[in-house]
Amino acid sequence: MNVPFLDSLTSLADLRAVAVERLPEIAQDLRDRIIKIVAANEGHLGASLGVVDLTVALHYVFDTPNDRLIWDVGHQAYGHKMLTGRLAQFHTNRKLGGISGFPKRSESEFDAFGTGHSSTAISAALGMALAAQQQKKFSRQHIAVIGDASIAAGMAFEALNHAGETNANLLIVLNDNSIGIDPSVGALKHYLTSLDQNNQTVQNLFQNLNIAYFGPIDGHDLPQLVSELRAQKQKSGVRLLHVRTTKGKGLKPAELNQVLYHAPGKFDYLTGKVYEKDESHLPLKFQDVFGTTVLALLEQHKDIIAITPAMPSGSGLKAVIDRFPENVIDVGIAEQHAVTLAAGFACEGVKVLCCIYSTFLQRAYDQLIHDVAIQNLPVVFCIDRAGLVGEDGATHHGIFDLAMLRTVPNVIVAAPKDEIDLQQLLFTAVHTSQPFAIRYPRARGFIPEWRAPLAFERMEIGKAKQVRHGKRIAVFSTGTIFHEVESAFQQLDNVPIAHVHFPFVKPLDRNAIESVAAQFEVIITVEDGVAAGGFGSAVLELLSELNFQGRTQIIGIPDVFIEHGSIPELRKLAGIDALTIAESIKKFSSNNG
Amino acid sequence: MNVPFLDSLTSLADLRAVAVERLPEIAQDLRDRIIKIVAANEGHLGASLGVVDLTVALHYVFDTPNDRLIWDVGHQAYGHKMLTGRLAQFHTNRKLGGISGFPKRSESEFDAFGTGHSSTAISAALGMALAAQQQKKFSRQHIAVIGDASIAAGMAFEALNHAGETNANLLIVLNDNSIGIDPSVGALKHYLTSLDQNNQTVQNLFQNLNIAYFGPIDGHDLPQLVSELRAQKQKSGVRLLHVRTTKGKGLKPAELNQVLYHAPGKFDYLTGKVYEKDESHLPLKFQDVFGTTVLALLEQHKDIIAITPAMPSGSGLKAVIDRFPENVIDVGIAEQHAVTLAAGFACEGVKVLCCIYSTFLQRAYDQLIHDVAIQNLPVVFCIDRAGLVGEDGATHHGIFDLAMLRTVPNVIVAAPKDEIDLQQLLFTAVHTSQPFAIRYPRARGFIPEWRAPLAFERMEIGKAKQVRHGKRIAVFSTGTIFHEVESAFQQLDNVPIAHVHFPFVKPLDRNAIESVAAQFEVIITVEDGVAAGGFGSAVLELLSELNFQGRTQIIGIPDVFIEHGSIPELRKLAGIDALTIAESIKKFSSNNG
Repeated sequence: MNVPFLDSLTSLADLRAVAVERLPEIAQDLRDRIIKIVAANEGHLGASLGVVDLTVALHYVFDTPNDRLIWDVGHQAYGHKMLTGRLAQFHTNRKLGGISGFPKRSESEFDAFGTGHSSTAISAALGMALAAQQQKKFSRQHIAVIGDASIAAGMAFEALNHAGETNANLLIVLNDNSIGIDPSVGALKHYLTSLDQNNQTVQNLFQNLNIAYFGPIDGHDLPQLVSELRAQKQKSGVRLLHVRTTKGKGLKPAELNQVLYHAPGKFDYLTGKVYEKDESHLPLKFQDVFGTTVLALLEQHKDIIAITPAMPSGSGLKAVIDRFPENVIDVGIAEQHAVTLAAGFACEGVKVLCCIYSTFLQRAYDQLIHDVAIQNLPVVFCIDRAGLVGEDGATHHGIFDLAMLRTVPNVIVAAPKDEIDLQQLLFTAVHTSQPFAIRYPRARGFIPEWRAPLAFERMEIGKAKQVRHGKRIAVFSTGTIFHEVESAFQQLDNVPIAHVHFPFVKPLDRNAIESVAAQFEVIITVEDGVAAGGFGSAVLELLSELNFQGRTQIIGIPDVFIEHGSIPELRKLAGIDALTIAESIKKFSSNNG
Repeated sequence: MNVPFLDSLTSLADLRAVAVERLPEIAQDLRDRIIKIVAANEGHLGASLGVVDLTVALHYVFDTPNDRLIWDVGHQAYGHKMLTGRLAQFHTNRKLGGISGFPKRSESEFDAFGTGHSSTAISAALGMALAAQQQKKFSRQHIAVIGDASIAAGMAFEALNHAGETNANLLIVLNDNSIGIDPSVGALKHYLTSLDQNNQTVQNLFQNLNIAYFGPIDGHDLPQLVSELRAQKQKSGVRLLHVRTTKGKGLKPAELNQVLYHAPGKFDYLTGKVYEKDESHLPLKFQDVFGTTVLALLEQHKDIIAITPAMPSGSGLKAVIDRFPENVIDVGIAEQHAVTLAAGFACEGVKVLCCIYSTFLQRAYDQLIHDVAIQNLPVVFCIDRAGLVGEDGATHHGIFDLAMLRTVPNVIVAAPKDEIDLQQLLFTAVHTSQPFAIRYPRARGFIPEWRAPLAFERMEIGKAKQVRHGKRIAVFSTGTIFHEVESAFQQLDNVPIAHVHFPFVKPLDRNAIESVAAQFEVIITVEDGVAAGGFGSAVLELLSELNFQGRTQIIGIPDVFIEHGSIPELRKLAGIDALTIAESIKKFSSNNG
């Protein structure tokens, strides 16, 4: 077999020496490699395939890394990584110790800005461009590549609004493929679709913001891309190049089913056929437990509204949309709007679920405080992807939620340990007239036979549940880390240790804690969120009030950012796995035993 | 003296029975009353004066409170409050137990949505409008009044983008006065200014988003306003009415100096002349200590950039702008963009100060975590209005910052106790290569002679300072609440109590705490932030590690929203005033003494 052309390029200098006519070969090699590696190792597929041609053209024309290139979101940067020195390591993508699935400054000088959450690229590139002006680096170019779903988020608009009154060297490449993870929504999407080269005669929306507009051009026509980017390289100031691409380009099934092939799991790299696994014996994913429960709740309460900012699939709402399309609202990448919109619904007495991943809820912290909690409005926050999320890494872990939510007055904060807890918490939440947050992980449940909600029962708000009796040492846990704690016990030879499950981090069960404090010498708390300020910290605050004189230990995620890897690997790294929990407990039992 | 026409209206029914020709009299009465009361009691002036005519017209035409009327930000709603049953109480505006300076659902059914932070109104009104559709209340109208500065913020764009693909009954009234607290900035502002009725022939920016556009019209022409609003009342769907107003309308000095008269303090209600107080003997406000220090730092480091989201005056940056206009960037109401822009600068080695009020930093929590902290970029967060802010009330207190910042890895969190601490912390921060947050209150300092920075010295990061020695009981404080603690001591007859000042909430001074833990029986922490998850909570976490066996108490803001009032009143209410602190200490000295 011949060495692919791609592998013969030892640096970008080699790429830049290639004739334009041969660039499609390189693009084809990149596509093949992306498909092959993602087929075997999993990862994000469609987005990277869609921008392969653009990636080749950008690095061919611009003087990266001196010119700054920022990939918004960044899961489309596989081709970029392969072209910038990481081809040989690419098989380690998203693995523990391997390269990140997102651009990362510490990984390469070509990764000008670390991304992961959407819509940051224009702001970051503008900051760099204004710094270059200050530093008199007038020829440096700054390129932000941003998708049509991302550019609709508020912070991207804030950046455009600011950029339009500067003369920074900023080229915004709008990668318009009409889809995020799910199809793009919103008025802007329709507008972008309507733009063609003929309507450049009137001012368009970007020109209204004083941003020069170019395009739209075909993002898969390499000679045209190179020619247009060469022209852009000679320009200065703020301009936007509108590029139309097809997500999944080059793999037919991925072009035809863009949602599935966003991150398809393992598949046959020749046919693209996704390997079907018989998962009927496995517990459902929490997202599907959520979706299934919402369906059942909708049978009882036709007026429930579920709001999602661009995550209908990931949030398990697809099944709900199929059955009750009027009851699910996808607002696009707009977490701030999603929360305040939910507050508006709640004002009118509508039962409203605001479904946002833990890490993205950070985007709406103010709205949660200011628009929901201060007014004590009964919005139910359904927070998926809580805890360590695995291969997406530091930008996506949902580990700050317990700490950030429990400090806000009026908000109930809950974390189910399994499917039944989640269904009953949801049921309880829709019957509660104050803000109610429920966080659950990116994981499967623990009860294989759970396929639909059992009889709904309201949980007593704030009530903990002692699941195991013991002496001297008591362990408090919240959420699904419950099961790591139970596993830890199996490694401790029948030492009788109490275990109390707290479905509610707020309000804390004062009676339960008082009773344990009166009888036990050691209280250990375990959570899959940051140890600083979280559940354990709340327990310490209460124990301080109760004047507990025994010993305490908080087991949670330490004060460092946890990178990517599998969830079990990362739990071990963070010291919240069964083995480490068992060791902590042992220390207390031997110290004083 | 005749009873003003305004006072003869006992309800909105009375207003609606008035002939259109007489509405200007009511508007004039409202203006007189607003001027008179604000002149005597302080408060927000210019914004309410600017919308008096619009306020009269809206309530005259629409069927409030059945039609929902939302005032974005809400400090312009004084006229609205006076017309909706709160004329007689208006002299209690912003006072403890009095009416709020912002719309508040618990205060009146006419306050459809509580506001305070900007740019929420469209989202909330859209939620209500979609709820009305669901509830088949098809004739209900939903009106969001939003300023040109507020509509430029990201979340407003998110709401427009969503609204444009619905057919909700939503009327957005764009109150365009070209100014927020400071003059509006951004490309959108220029665009709005350029719009006139002639360019309605081509699609404008709002129409691009599928929102029907009307105007611009003169927001001080009552007959025209009434006629246009009557037309709007008959329409359905999403539309925007562009109204041009003059901030401060009706008080000449306020029209001419809109920044000063945003919230002018006390003034002569006849002439508008602001009472000048000789404040030369008073300590500077912290905001001016900050500004003065930045000026001095800029003398040494010409490359420092300060970024503010629409608060150049309030952040004390005006003096800096006068001298170094290139070094201050006002991005408008765009906290998310401000933080990521700062991250971009920091990537290029620029020393960057990101100046955001504590309560508004909640809007950029994700950007602080995701764009700054994960990448460990040396952005200095200069956080004014930390702690209780007084009369602005629940929406504006800066009490979540310590809790939300200390849980984020890589971030240094500092709180100066006085002017010298602040200057040295700023100096230290610009020489530190990691994220650095400094929070300080809306208050004057404590050192009247401080008028400019003393010799700069770097502070040792994480080092606490024992300022008072004692026995048995030690008090730890952070920030300016230091002085309440010292006052508390004066109420305790020479009981020798130790006091340790923590300029750094993170990292905590482990050595100092270890040493105190070894010698003292009681440790009390005091802070002017939420008790849950804040400084005291961090101390407890460390004491847990150290196996401290003594007693502890956290004194901080309890788990309820604190309303408006003077700062001393609110401190007392929250239990963080000298008297309450003294009582807490006494309990420990008598219990075990």
